Parts: sequence; structure tokens; C-alpha cells
Amino acid sequence: MSLDTIIAKADANLEDSVERLFELLRIESISTDPAYKDACVEAADWLVAELQALGFDASRRDTPGHPMVVGHSAGEGQKKLFYGHYDVQPVDPLDLWSHPPFDPILEDREGGKVIRARGASDDKGQLMTFVEACRAWKEVNGTLPPNLVILFEGEEESGSPSLVPFLKENADELRAEIGLVCDTGLWDRDTPAISTMLRGLVSADFTIKASDMDLHSGMYGGAAINPIRVLTKILGGLHDDQGRVTLPGFYDGVLPLSNEIKDQWESLNFDGEAFLGAVGLSEPAGEKAFSTLEQLWSRPTCDINGISGGYTGKGFKTVLPSEAHAKVSFRLVGEQDPKAIGASFKAYIEENLPPDCEVIYHGGEGAPATSLNTEQPELVKSREALSAEWPNEAIFGGCGGSIPIVGLFQDILGMDSILIGFGLESDLIHSPNEKYDLRSFHKGIRSWIRVLDALS
Amino acid sequence: MSLDTIIAKADANLEDSVERLFELLRIESISTDPAYKDACVEAADWLVAELQALGFDASRRDTPGHPMVVGHSAGEGQKKLFYGHYDVQPVDPLDLWSHPPFDPILEDREGGKVIRARGASDDKGQLMTFVEACRAWKEVNGTLPPNLVILFEGEEESGSPSLVPFLKENADELRAEIGLVCDTGLWDRDTPAISTMLRGLVSADFTIKASDMDLHSGMYGGAAINPIRVLTKILGGLHDDQGRVTLPGFYDGVLPLSNEIKDQWESLNFDGEAFLGAVGLSEPAGEKAFSTLEQLWSRPTCDINGISGGYTGKGFKTVLPSEAHAKVSFRLVGEQDPKAIGASFKAYIEENLPPDCEVIYHGGEGAPATSLNTEQPELVKSREALSAEWPNEAIFGGCGGSIPIVGLFQDILGMDSILIGFGLESDLIHSPNEKYDLRSFHKGIRSWIRVLDALS
Repeated sequence: MSLDTIIAKADANLEDSVERLFELLRIESISTDPAYKDACVEAADWLVAELQALGFDASRRDTPGHPMVVGHSAGEGQKKLFYGHYDVQPVDPLDLWSHPPFDPILEDREGGKVIRARGASDDKGQLMTFVEACRAWKEVNGTLPPNLVILFEGEEESGSPSLVPFLKENADELRAEIGLVCDTGLWDRDTPAISTMLRGLVSADFTIKASDMDLHSGMYGGAAINPIRVLTKILGGLHDDQGRVTLPGFYDGVLPLSNEIKDQWESLNFDGEAFLGAVGLSEPAGEKAFSTLEQLWSRPTCDINGISGGYTGKGFKTVLPSEAHAKVSFRLVGEQDPKAIGASFKAYIEENLPPDCEVIYHGGEGAPATSLNTEQPELVKSREALSAEWPNEAIFGGCGGSIPIVGLFQDILGMDSILIGFGLESDLIHSPNEKYDLRSFHKGIRSWIRVLDALS
Repeated sequence: MSLDTIIAKADANLEDSVERLFELLRIESISTDPAYKDACVEAADWLVAELQALGFDASRRDTPGHPMVVGHSAGEGQKKLFYGHYDVQPVDPLDLWSHPPFDPILEDREGGKVIRARGASDDKGQLMTFVEACRAWKEVNGTLPPNLVILFEGEEESGSPSLVPFLKENADELRAEIGLVCDTGLWDRDTPAISTMLRGLVSADFTIKASDMDLHSGMYGGAAINPIRVLTKILGGLHDDQGRVTLPGFYDGVLPLSNEIKDQWESLNFDGEAFLGAVGLSEPAGEKAFSTLEQLWSRPTCDINGISGGYTGKGFKTVLPSEAHAKVSFRLVGEQDPKAIGASFKAYIEENLPPDCEVIYHGGEGAPATSLNTEQPELVKSREALSAEWPNEAIFGGCGGSIPIVGLFQDILGMDSILIGFGLESDLIHSPNEKYDLRSFHKGIRSWIRVLDALS
């Protein structure tokens, strides 16, 4: 059957496709919080049932953490592995949501309808574009796209602790000729993108401890060391006045951009002012020597993602707390070594600890940055397929976020991946009021049909 | 009747006195949190009823905030005003309490029985030492100590917003020859103290705001300003490496200690190591040029009492928050000007705000430090009375905390105060598991009987 027939079938299915996505969005699969462990299992089971109903040989694969879902289609030809994740970010602060995060709704907005829910964009809405593409394909052709493996993970938002052992144990089953990953965004509303440079990530979650108990600043203030003072001195010293990270060795392995990529990025006419203006900002806050797009795609960062300590309720309490906490992450580029940077950060903390203070680490994670070869044929074909669906031609872009799966597919399965996604900057992923444009969902399904056709 | 008979009566009353204190401790009169407004009224009403039952002409005096309680005894002679406060600190973190904070219990500890509850020491237990002293006096003499005014406040832990207008409006009624304030501590278990130097306080509660919404650090990290980074830079710059506060003009008005006071403090043989060792610390963290006791009593401080921002739950969230918060307080000494220091702090914050950030202040408070004349006869007589009750002679000491009432009594009522209290460093006031030694309560009652006798 022709491509157009499959696409028409996807169009006709759209209302039901949204209803199926809503079922998945209602499952509160927050992977970082143990309270939602059962919900993660429920989401995995829901996906297994969907894949089985479509004709995949699918099963839930339990791990020491949240389960994986694996499905296989029959047939020959180039083997492709599709990856998505069913777990979602926490939802706090809950009072900033205009609608309950796990009660998905379709809202009419100025730019068109949006699907509002936690996970609508990251990543349930995205992974369902692929599932619904397979459905239309099957309904028209009578069989699924051939020789496809689907892998859904439930720990992407919590550092993927089970992923490496799972990939290693099941390498023969999972290894394909190319990976397809749907966890990235469009360049803009009308321009699709294939991400070919991904930043890595190192994170650290730690506590500075001082006295055995909280103290009253009237009684001890002045003489007792305050762990918040220690913590803020440490965190406040991480950047110099040029926006550079001060950790020794931090920039080791950061490579200059090739002229080719530089030229391509310049031709994108990225509007840094509009990008920041959309969220109420006006000046790029990173390294002064680099453009906004370079700060986002090709430069490493240090971000303090959370701090707490002492009295934070209403009113005032003149307490000297016994401890203070921080969560810090570093986005990595080029050949920066996550282990070396994690160690350099710990050494920096420990050098700045005054007497009577200790630091306790609560774990962290690390993944290096990734670059993909932009000349491989699957990448070129996928780009053409996307360009046929969207108003503008697809671009090869960078991605500020970390998608460690790409590096793991390279290292463990020896396989490159194509990163295609339909999110928008306005999707508020990881924030209250996350959404996914209905247009992203609909044209995402159509896009995958085109890509599957181009690669088959 | 003789002093000994009154003291014996107080001894006989002790069990009932504790039971009455427990009734007051059960009332959840947290003044900083509007949710406990009714409980504050309930505590005031309970005190009015107690005072009336004792024969005071007592009433609840409503204010725009929490009510005052005022009681008068009949008779002539030197007019004395007793002050205490019935409001208490918040109780969080609740999970660190070994027993519910508003369910008082008597616990057997190595050093003797302790009363465990929020407010046991600060200040319900302390104010009840005076009420119970009046009770024994009345039961033996048939009349209350003459010409006494009692003033109980319900906003001491929340900056006393109604106190100045109330003192001004009722100055003629309240003005006495001497104030008696019970909100301080013993020097040590066996040595009573009259505090003659009190540090002042300036506090600031503020938020740094940046983007309009929380952002994902993968998408915006590097280019979007992070308000936690701004906040920690500001807070981390408040102290230099000598422990001095860096605000311009901060030390204006800090006076050197007189040789007399210096000698007296040296003769106390204060054991700084033991003082810090009791809470798990070993080195004084304040200005390196000063002794631990000077850091506590005669040097100003800057303390960060609370910080919050971004994701602080379990696990990790690579969020760039839109805002970050801090509560900061300064303990003042000598002639430091609270207004000037508050203004200097705001100027410092604003000078360090990068583009796209703004600061929002949530109010704050200020009170200068206070010094009392150690040669006035009431102070000398009270010292003798205390020395008769306790194993060691009473000392004239400093107090690291702020008791703004003393300055207000001086300014508005033209009256000096005698600060006598029976708390211990180990009382954990403002912390989980606050307690008051039964011995403090018992000998506190006996001490007030002696002081009232000495001053009458």
C-alpha cells in the first residue's frame, strides 16, 4: 500500500490515538520517588498490553528498579531499535499546575490544541507517536514494520540505574543496525530537527553537616559554624565573573566547534533574544565569550538545581541549622570526562570545608556527551522523510539536554542512533503545566510513518 | 510571714505547678504561622483566667495581631512590671521530635527530670515561674506582691509588631520603676545570671526572581540565569576569610569592651571548647580576632537562617528554578544602627543582582542592642537574692540573643529592666525536643520569691 494510505489511516485514527495516550498519561509513573513504584509497573504493563494487541511479541522485563518493556515485530530487513521512556518527572510544586498533572485534558490555545499533563511531551506523548505510527502501518499493510525492536525504559528521569546491566545482558536481542530515539524537540514549530550533538551530565546531591542539632542563633550565633554559610560559599564560588565554571580541569576535553558546524548553526538565524524573551529573560547568563546557541549546545554548564536548609516556612526563625543540602548538575560536551569532573567537584567541596563540617554524598550520575556522524545514510534518509512532512526542511542540530541512551547504544550495542522528536521549547517539560501540542502528536505520528517507510 | 514559709509553700505546690504549666504547654500558640491564630487567643485567655483566679485584675487586650495579657495587683510600694511571652516557635521538622511537641511530658534524664515540650523553656515555663511565685506568696501572705503589673505578649517570636503601639497607648498604665523580664538563661547549672548586655537583631526575608517559570536545564542550562546561583553568590560573599561580615559600614558603632567587663568575663573561665563540644563542634567560627565568649556576647554576626530553591525532594530534577529564597539575620551590638545595616544589606544584594533578576523583600525587623547599668540598686539586690538560692553567686553576663523588649521599655516607658531567667544551653529552644529542667522550674519559682522579697 502507498505511504499516503497509511498516513490517511493515522489521520483517521487521531481521536482514538489521543484517547490511548490519555490512558497512559493517567498513570502516575514518577520514577524518582519510591512512592510511585507500583505506578511505574502499571505503566509498563499498560504498554506491554498495547504492543501485544498490535501484534508485537512484547513482555515486561523486571529489573532491580523499574521494569523495561521490550517488543519485537516479525520479518526481515534492516533491524531497528526504537527507544522511549514511560517514566515522568515529579510534579511539585503542585499548586502551580492549572489542572491536575495526571488528569490529561485537551486545551484550546492560541496556536492550536494542546495536550496538558505531566509526561505529555516528556516522554509519553513522544513514544506514543511511534506506537501509533506502527498501528496505522499494521492496519493498512496487515503486518507491522518488519524486524523492529521496541525498548521502553522506566528510569530515564532517575539516572537509568538498571539500563547498563539490562543492555549488557540482552545485547544480542537488542542490537540493531540503527537506533531510533524519540526524546528531543523540533527546531521550531515548522522545522523538524535531528539532534547530532548531545550534552552529557554529571550530577551530585549532597549535604553539609555541622553541629549535632539545630541551634538558636541568639545563643550560638557567631561562634557556631553555619552549614548554610559553608554551602553558599561553596556554591557561590562555582562561577567566575565571566560565567566560566571555576573547577580545576573542568574545561579539559571541551573541543572547539568545527567551522562546518559553526557555519550551519549561524545559518539557522537563531534568535537568542526571542528564545530568552519567551521566558522573561533578556541576557544570556553563560560564558560571555560565546553566543547563546553555543552556550546551549556546545558549552558545558554548572547548574544548581536545588538548595535547602534551615527554616523555610512562613515568618522567621533565628535557627542555626545542623545541615544544608544542594543538588548540582553539570552538562558536559565534547570529550569531558564525567568521572574526572565528579571527582574535581568533590575535591573542591572538600577543600572548602571548614573545621567541624563534613559532606555526605547521596549518589549522583554521569554520562559523557555524544556526537553522531551526520553523513550516515539512515540520517540522510530520515532527514528527507521529515522534510517531506513539515513546512521547512529538517536541520541537524545540537541538544542542550542529556540523552545518555545514545552513548550507551554506541558503547554497549555498537550502534548509532537517530534522534527525532517533536517537542517544543514551550512544552514546560520538568515544570508545572507540561503540555504537548496536538499538532506535534499528530505530525509526529505521520513523521514516523515517513521515516519507517524511508528506512524500509 | 517569713521568706522561708513562702518558699516551703512553693515546694509543696510543685506538682500542681507542673500540671498548670502542662495545661499552657498543650496550647499550640505558634505566633509566626497564621494557622495558629486561635491557639494564641486560647493561650491568652488561659493566662487571664489564671491571673484572675490568683486575684490579679487581669484582662485580655486585643491588638491587630495576637492579644496581650495585662494583670495588676493591688497595693503600694515600688511599682514593678513583669514581662514574659506565651507564644512559641514553629515545631518543624516535626519528625525530629522524640515526643509530640504539644503533648508535654516529664522525662527522667541523667541530670534530673526535664519538662519536654515546645515552649517548655522559651518562654511558657519561664513566665510560669513568676506566676507560681506569686501564687505561693498569696497563699502565705493572703495578698499578692503589691503594685505589680504583669504583661504577657503573644508575638515575641514573630517580631512583636503590636508591641510598640501597645506600649505607647498604655504607657501610663504600664510604666513602672523597674521591669522584670524572664526570657534568659542561667550561666551554668549552678550559677544564675543577670543579663546586662543584649545583642540586637536585624532580619531580612527575600526572594531572588529570574525567569517567568521553572526551566529545564537541558534546554536552557548555560544561557538562562539561575537564581540559586545568584543567591548563593550573594550569601557566599557575606563573610571574608577572617569571619568578618563584608557589608560596608557593618562594624560602625561596634564598641570595644571596657576593661572592667573584659576582666569580669575572663574571670568566668568560660570553656569555649566545652560549650561548642556539647553540640558536636570544636572551633569557633566567628571573627578570628575574638574569643568565643566575645563572639557570642559582644560581637555582631550575620546568620543565614534558611535557604530554599529548585527541587529539594528525593532523587534529582534538572530544573532551573524561577526563584530562590533566603532568610538572613544580623545580631547587633553596641551602637550599631539596625536601619543602616538593613539598608546596607539591601544595597549589597541589589549591587550583586545580574540582569533579568529582581529581589522581593518579605518584610523584616530590627532592634538595636541594649546595655544596662550594673550599679543600680535593684540589680544589686536581685543579684544577692539569686545568689542565696543557687549554689554559686550570680554573675552579670552578656546575652547573645535579642530581647527587644528591654530597649522598648527603656525608650517608651523610660524604665530599666532586670533580666533573670533559668534556661540552659541544653534546652534546645527553637529546635526539636525543647525542654526545661524541672530544677530550673522549681528553683526559678523560689528565685522569684526571693527577688520579690528583696525588692519589696
